[in-house]
Amino acid sequence: MTETVPCLPKDLLDLDDYSPGQLDLVLDLAESFKEISRRTIKKVPTLRGKLVVLFFHENSTRTRLSFEVAAKRLSADTIALSASGSSLAKGESLLDTARNIAAMAPDALVIRHGASGVPGFLARRLDFPVLNAGDGAHAHPTQALLDMLTLREAKGGLKGLKVAVIGDIAHSRVARSNMIGLTKMGARVAVAGPPSMLVPDLAETYGVEVFTRPEPALEGADAVIMLRIQLERQSGTLFPGAREYARVYGLDHERLKLAKPDVVIMHPGPVNQGVEMTPEIYEDPRSLILPQVTNGVAVRMALLHLLIERPATPADS
Amino acid sequence: MTETVPCLPKDLLDLDDYSPGQLDLVLDLAESFKEISRRTIKKVPTLRGKLVVLFFHENSTRTRLSFEVAAKRLSADTIALSASGSSLAKGESLLDTARNIAAMAPDALVIRHGASGVPGFLARRLDFPVLNAGDGAHAHPTQALLDMLTLREAKGGLKGLKVAVIGDIAHSRVARSNMIGLTKMGARVAVAGPPSMLVPDLAETYGVEVFTRPEPALEGADAVIMLRIQLERQSGTLFPGAREYARVYGLDHERLKLAKPDVVIMHPGPVNQGVEMTPEIYEDPRSLILPQVTNGVAVRMALLHLLIERPATPADS
Amino acid sequence: MTETVPCLPKDLLDLDDYSPGQLDLVLDLAESFKEISRRTIKKVPTLRGKLVVLFFHENSTRTRLSFEVAAKRLSADTIALSASGSSLAKGESLLDTARNIAAMAPDALVIRHGASGVPGFLARRLDFPVLNAGDGAHAHPTQALLDMLTLREAKGGLKGLKVAVIGDIAHSRVARSNMIGLTKMGARVAVAGPPSMLVPDLAETYGVEVFTRPEPALEGADAVIMLRIQLERQSGTLFPGAREYARVYGLDHERLKLAKPDVVIMHPGPVNQGVEMTPEIYEDPRSLILPQVTNGVAVRMALLHLLIERPATPADS
Repeated sequence: MTETVPCLPKDLLDLDDYSPGQLDLVLDLAESFKEISRRTIKKVPTLRGKLVVLFFHENSTRTRLSFEVAAKRLSADTIALSASGSSLAKGESLLDTARNIAAMAPDALVIRHGASGVPGFLARRLDFPVLNAGDGAHAHPTQALLDMLTLREAKGGLKGLKVAVIGDIAHSRVARSNMIGLTKMGARVAVAGPPSMLVPDLAETYGVEVFTRPEPALEGADAVIMLRIQLERQSGTLFPGAREYARVYGLDHERLKLAKPDVVIMHPGPVNQGVEMTPEIYEDPRSLILPQVTNGVAVRMALLHLLIERPATPADS
Repeated sequence: MTETVPCLPKDLLDLDDYSPGQLDLVLDLAESFKEISRRTIKKVPTLRGKLVVLFFHENSTRTRLSFEVAAKRLSADTIALSASGSSLAKGESLLDTARNIAAMAPDALVIRHGASGVPGFLARRLDFPVLNAGDGAHAHPTQALLDMLTLREAKGGLKGLKVAVIGDIAHSRVARSNMIGLTKMGARVAVAGPPSMLVPDLAETYGVEVFTRPEPALEGADAVIMLRIQLERQSGTLFPGAREYARVYGLDHERLKLAKPDVVIMHPGPVNQGVEMTPEIYEDPRSLILPQVTNGVAVRMALLHLLIERPATPADS
Repeated sequence: MTETVPCLPKDLLDLDDYSPGQLDLVLDLAESFKEISRRTIKKVPTLRGKLVVLFFHENSTRTRLSFEVAAKRLSADTIALSASGSSLAKGESLLDTARNIAAMAPDALVIRHGASGVPGFLARRLDFPVLNAGDGAHAHPTQALLDMLTLREAKGGLKGLKVAVIGDIAHSRVARSNMIGLTKMGARVAVAGPPSMLVPDLAETYGVEVFTRPEPALEGADAVIMLRIQLERQSGTLFPGAREYARVYGLDHERLKLAKPDVVIMHPGPVNQGVEMTPEIYEDPRSLILPQVTNGVAVRMALLHLLIERPATPADS
């Protein structure tokens, strides 16, 4: 699908809704926004007088901070509300809460929620942009975009790269959004995880290669994305313990030799060192885990800018 | 009482202290401030460099958000402190806490507290404006003002309107502030609630009509304000259960027929749908519950502006 | 040690690292910054576009507020994160958390932590200023600086003053930073507390006089700093109860007669009235407890300004 002027959808719910041209638009702007964070005065007046509401129904200091820094760098005002202790919620549905927020005329809503589909549900009912900051096991599009920006910077482009994604593919919104985004941009994605962390139709649904061992996924890889193991969420039966997981799926320098010598290592953070990867891998110069965090701010700046300043189109409901 | 130049009191504690001319001043400015929230750049520099401290000793996301948005739209800085986990409070009286806040030279204190009279107690001891964001069962003046603004917009004025207020009149600071404000502006107020939710001298104290059934209050009403039933606070003995309450006092389309055809429906939120009103009433085009939220921001902008920019008068202590 | 141009260290960890000339530089600027908080528009654009991260791992509304107000008065943006509920911390070391924050390119990190040495540990690994807002029983340099500013204002200088510091000397970071700072500026410090609240080498280590009774410390004092008794932290065996403590060590007007008539009374707050001092002392006109709070904002403004705007030197790692 060729486009002349990539105009973004009203919201960012997942990367399905974005064409390659639209993804490039976001990544290009993010790249140029990185320079702002290196200035002496790290602020541009782009979104002055705009209000971004950060509604984190599920705890996430890291992503919330990143969105908050991004909004402030563009001179937007931010208001954060968390679910815990929120009197908005008493006897009120999530939609009613959102309509109340809407009545205060914000310019964007950033939402994280434990249930898949909540951002989309709200986006269809609100007339300002909704940005999904992670919903259940469904999608985490800003994480995938920051991964793509990091990869593009390291490798000069995404087309033709082999990217290994290793871990709990079935329950990871990071994996899901990355499979969609990376394949869309012409990368080849190989996922690997224990059988209990894979779902049947992965290969057909997402056009990825699927393995139950990390080695074939790592073979010749340009990049490897290690997923976070939710130690606090896993029940004892789902997988054979962190130590065993580390032994079979964890990234160490031995296993990494299967990849290309200039492979880059990524992780959405926070890393369980000694589980997903050894401390040596974490500190390896090819590890881009902290540049990912830097890119997270840039990608969120680009999205806030593009969606808030987006001209209305006839397609808008 | 006619006034030539309505100069406001130092604080906003309750509507008793405000004359009709002063209430009009607030409402007129709020009306003109509504336009700011519809602009592309929703911000004016009016209160640049001013600091508004939001001290919510009782939980209230909704009112806190509204004050915070209002302050930011006027370019004020805000600092929020909640009681929970506040080390200010350890071994320190509320007055000492307030004096400590005062030593940091804020320009206004917005306070919500579970005990009636706390905002007034502090206001008499602090030399900057104190705005009551709700204190015990005493007063919630910004809620009454936003209700009055909403009514004025819908009906062109307040004088001569019949307003029904239905629910737990005895324990509602919203009811109390509205009875004072609306009667002061020449509206006729009819309150209704179960006998356990009424107090003996309501009629004489506030100059309102009092009923134990909603029907006579609704009869010919221009507006109805349904109060929130505090399901979480009610003990089982106080009133005969939510279902029974809904049957006798809840607003449905049948009961609403008693009011004027162009009656407007209001509620301070959040609504217990199926208790105070049916979902159909909540969605009725005559329901102004979301416009109330929008007006809340405007009323709080007007108050912050007027009280912070108020010239000192000889009457100040 | 004479200096021609006092250039500050990269961080503020404790007052050991600051020479008298450097301390004077901070106090002089703080004094001139006090004027900003008295203006109609309490804000200067000095730190516009700078980001100050407030990381309070230990609860402290008072100090956090003061830093937040200070940052906003200089037009910096602030982002606060607390330890509780921080998902940054899950499976991640404090250093990793700090490196993640660093990747978002803040301009300063203000940290409070229950463990001594944490700010120093982070400061050596981060290339932007770290300001210690209190770490364990180690140091609380901004508190000592605000005490010194308050004393300097009241007495015209610090040299030759006798300052009594009374309370739990052994466990107080406020006492430690004040002993270092005040002796460095030429004041004579006399500390007093129960034997269980003193440590052996105080006199030699800090060059102070040590007493187990308050009277000799108070004798002829120009100022007295009463330390806060951590009623919530003390085990029953450490000291003989609050009532007994008050009787022997608490400040009352009788005991205060030992000091100079123009003695000033200070306390880091919040005061346990009736324990560290009587309510009469708290309200005495010579009590500077609220001016201390005002000076806290000024001192933190000066430090944020000096450290963020500090030119890099060859000594920086």
